[in-house]
Amino acid sequence: MVGEARMVLVTGATGGIGTAVCHQLAGSGYPLVLAARNEAKLKTLSDELTGDGHVWLQLDMTNDQSIRQFGEELAARRITLDGVVLMPPQAHSTNDPMPGADAWRALFQNCFIGPLEVLKAAIDRMNPDPVNGRRAKIVIISGISSAQVLGRYATSNVLRCAWIGEAKTLAFALGARGIHVNTLSLGGTLSPWYREGIEKRADAVGITFEQRLAEETANIPLGKYGEPAEVAVAVEGLLSRFSDHMTGLNIMHDGGFTRSY
Amino acid sequence: MVGEARMVLVTGATGGIGTAVCHQLAGSGYPLVLAARNEAKLKTLSDELTGDGHVWLQLDMTNDQSIRQFGEELAARRITLDGVVLMPPQAHSTNDPMPGADAWRALFQNCFIGPLEVLKAAIDRMNPDPVNGRRAKIVIISGISSAQVLGRYATSNVLRCAWIGEAKTLAFALGARGIHVNTLSLGGTLSPWYREGIEKRADAVGITFEQRLAEETANIPLGKYGEPAEVAVAVEGLLSRFSDHMTGLNIMHDGGFTRSY
Amino acid sequence: MVGEARMVLVTGATGGIGTAVCHQLAGSGYPLVLAARNEAKLKTLSDELTGDGHVWLQLDMTNDQSIRQFGEELAARRITLDGVVLMPPQAHSTNDPMPGADAWRALFQNCFIGPLEVLKAAIDRMNPDPVNGRRAKIVIISGISSAQVLGRYATSNVLRCAWIGEAKTLAFALGARGIHVNTLSLGGTLSPWYREGIEKRADAVGITFEQRLAEETANIPLGKYGEPAEVAVAVEGLLSRFSDHMTGLNIMHDGGFTRSY
Amino acid sequence: MVGEARMVLVTGATGGIGTAVCHQLAGSGYPLVLAARNEAKLKTLSDELTGDGHVWLQLDMTNDQSIRQFGEELAARRITLDGVVLMPPQAHSTNDPMPGADAWRALFQNCFIGPLEVLKAAIDRMNPDPVNGRRAKIVIISGISSAQVLGRYATSNVLRCAWIGEAKTLAFALGARGIHVNTLSLGGTLSPWYREGIEKRADAVGITFEQRLAEETANIPLGKYGEPAEVAVAVEGLLSRFSDHMTGLNIMHDGGFTRSY
Repeated sequence: MVGEARMVLVTGATGGIGTAVCHQLAGSGYPLVLAARNEAKLKTLSDELTGDGHVWLQLDMTNDQSIRQFGEELAARRITLDGVVLMPPQAHSTNDPMPGADAWRALFQNCFIGPLEVLKAAIDRMNPDPVNGRRAKIVIISGISSAQVLGRYATSNVLRCAWIGEAKTLAFALGARGIHVNTLSLGGTLSPWYREGIEKRADAVGITFEQRLAEETANIPLGKYGEPAEVAVAVEGLLSRFSDHMTGLNIMHDGGFTRSY
Repeated sequence: MVGEARMVLVTGATGGIGTAVCHQLAGSGYPLVLAARNEAKLKTLSDELTGDGHVWLQLDMTNDQSIRQFGEELAARRITLDGVVLMPPQAHSTNDPMPGADAWRALFQNCFIGPLEVLKAAIDRMNPDPVNGRRAKIVIISGISSAQVLGRYATSNVLRCAWIGEAKTLAFALGARGIHVNTLSLGGTLSPWYREGIEKRADAVGITFEQRLAEETANIPLGKYGEPAEVAVAVEGLLSRFSDHMTGLNIMHDGGFTRSY
Repeated sequence: MVGEARMVLVTGATGGIGTAVCHQLAGSGYPLVLAARNEAKLKTLSDELTGDGHVWLQLDMTNDQSIRQFGEELAARRITLDGVVLMPPQAHSTNDPMPGADAWRALFQNCFIGPLEVLKAAIDRMNPDPVNGRRAKIVIISGISSAQVLGRYATSNVLRCAWIGEAKTLAFALGARGIHVNTLSLGGTLSPWYREGIEKRADAVGITFEQRLAEETANIPLGKYGEPAEVAVAVEGLLSRFSDHMTGLNIMHDGGFTRSY
Repeated sequence: MVGEARMVLVTGATGGIGTAVCHQLAGSGYPLVLAARNEAKLKTLSDELTGDGHVWLQLDMTNDQSIRQFGEELAARRITLDGVVLMPPQAHSTNDPMPGADAWRALFQNCFIGPLEVLKAAIDRMNPDPVNGRRAKIVIISGISSAQVLGRYATSNVLRCAWIGEAKTLAFALGARGIHVNTLSLGGTLSPWYREGIEKRADAVGITFEQRLAEETANIPLGKYGEPAEVAVAVEGLLSRFSDHMTGLNIMHDGGFTRSY
């Protein structure tokens, strides 16, 4: 699927979903720029990936200086990016519909402003040539609260919506340069962290993991949560020729859960 | 339309649209709490309004201390609110799809965090009794970029979307208490400020105001921009029994411009 | 609210919701054209309404000839309409996602083609003058499956969506003439017929009506189903100056149930 | 990308977009069932395709008997389908917002009821086994008027919306069996037929094809119409593992044209 090497930046690379994305992309021949907070984990991941040419860079998206250094490093290494998989840090789940001003300031900083600065630095390293078929693809990983209110993730609703506004704005602003911006909005996904949550909820009522999973997925048309590997395949699709005439989309990856047309 | 006095807070009361809203509501017998930055203008407006019982309070939504004092004043005066018309300050129009981090911090503070703090203070002063038919109504004034990207108002797209996320979250969180939260999203509206813009654009190409207006509204099904007085009637409707079974809605006030279903 | 007499056609006038709409509008001074299948019921309703100038016309929306006669009668009586409240007959509830071709043909005929012919006849009798502030308003009563799939009402999903497409098309086509087309999409509404259903479901599991109602409305933010009287107030609002700058909207009347933004 | 042979039905196979889809899928190793009206064209297409195992069946979706025979033929040949690419015939473009009853009856019959009967026959030949990873994928080709009103294609708006309602209903109804239903909504696509239209519009004003194309695509973020080959790649993606956790989606293939979020 990859002709000449198309380098892709993956943020949150060492997380449950990020790792799956990296393995999928590396397996398909993409050289990667791995970014995450923990250097030891980055090094381990980098070593495990198939393929050559991977690079890792420490990055803390909640830290202005770290973001600046990250951008400088991309430039210093003369890295040209053909793709970005951006995973903005998630807001901590809460049921508070009206957090205080300080909480909002931290949320916007860490989950929107910081990651957007990273994205800007990455866009600066893109050099697409759409006339000759070389298109650059940005995939923003979001959640289904980008399309519908989820009571459980109150503050997340706002940040997901803010990103949809920015993604669409960028799609319109960057389309003429051959830079595409699409969003993949995840429903429940069986990352190690999410599995733990199900396990806890199962334990709390004295049923098995499989029983609890069946209960939680009963109202999902496909009858299942997503697997990180499924997310990874979807991300690769959005980076590929599949999306050559698509931009500004918000694609649900939720087993059909979303009811609005 | 008003049985017992139902007090309504209007922020941005002295602006072009706010003034029209205040006159409409006062004319229908609502006692008002007028909030805006400029005390002289507040006093003038208050004097011009028909009806009794209006109160005005200085409020700068971009200033934490002003917001805190405003909330304390509402409490000190033992004001009970049955309605709020919240007009978050608008982001300055720009075509920059990726403003810097400082610009974003200011925008989120002034156009989201601050106004949300004001709204929280107002909600604290609501005491609805839905079982006995007394419902409290919040109307958030937004713009049509809450439903579709508008290239001209790039940063506004994000803030409008963020507010839609918050409005829906609040609608779900507060519905059981009998507090409704609906959004009215304005298309082009002929406030004095907006008229000036049309005049400038007309002058720039040497045509009349009416010619320019006809051109700008040619792609609007109803063939016109909104009038502040039309906005005011719509706001009064959303505060009235009209919305007794509606919450979490985002209603376009745009002459039919929006093409999505 | 009504200056000169503004005549409004209400179809399905003798049904649970139609009756409430007629009483509300007649009480506000609108002379009505009542249309429904059953002449005896029409006569009774007409006699019960306050105000003068009401007219009733027998109409079977599933019958081409009845529709033609209805249109001819409107013309023969030189009726000018300022408003229409169109209630297309509902598809019979079913869980069949793929009814046979004959079922579809009947559904499209009775629930879309026939009612649209009625609407066309009514539009022929409109003579708005928007420059002088006389606007004609069409309100189409639909259901929330116009905005989200409801498994229980499988075929209804298709018809509701088809109507949204037509309503928006009409809004764009007729806006310049000063004819507005908005849709009010009802969630659960406590019409006599709907109350019976709740009663049956309560009986089936041996609980009271109130208990069953509480269960069914637990996931509705406002904690209740709509009342026909609330629908009637909302319809009157959409016929009034409230909607003078609104057309092509699909407004949910569902207590906040809909989760999509 | 294809493990064991996964047979895919393509309707409208001999059209401009259908042909591109067939070549793409055949090139990737899918054995195909080609369906269209013209036997000679079907035979020619079948001979041109790479790969083995292709079958062609004459089918007129506007003819009840042809549809019945088609279904019987699928069964008689014991064909098992893993995918369907359904292209419902398009409504003839028109600007009439209120066609007559006869026109509607023909439109619903030819563009909805007939194609849905074909789809039902195809679903009867699906035998997915999701537990073992064998999922069946339906892709419905629609247009962007499924998401927004397009004045030029007035009746098309209704039919596209009706299909979105049915597609979502089927996604919910069939998900548990491992059958996915997604819609790909095309914006302007440079099929031979569409190219002719541009040529005509260019000739009419005395400019070149390329000039006219540039004008028409100026408001599309990616600055271009889609190519049939791009549609084909997107269709293949939706049939592939890409969509293993996606169903009920309506994906725009429009170069970013759609402005709603």
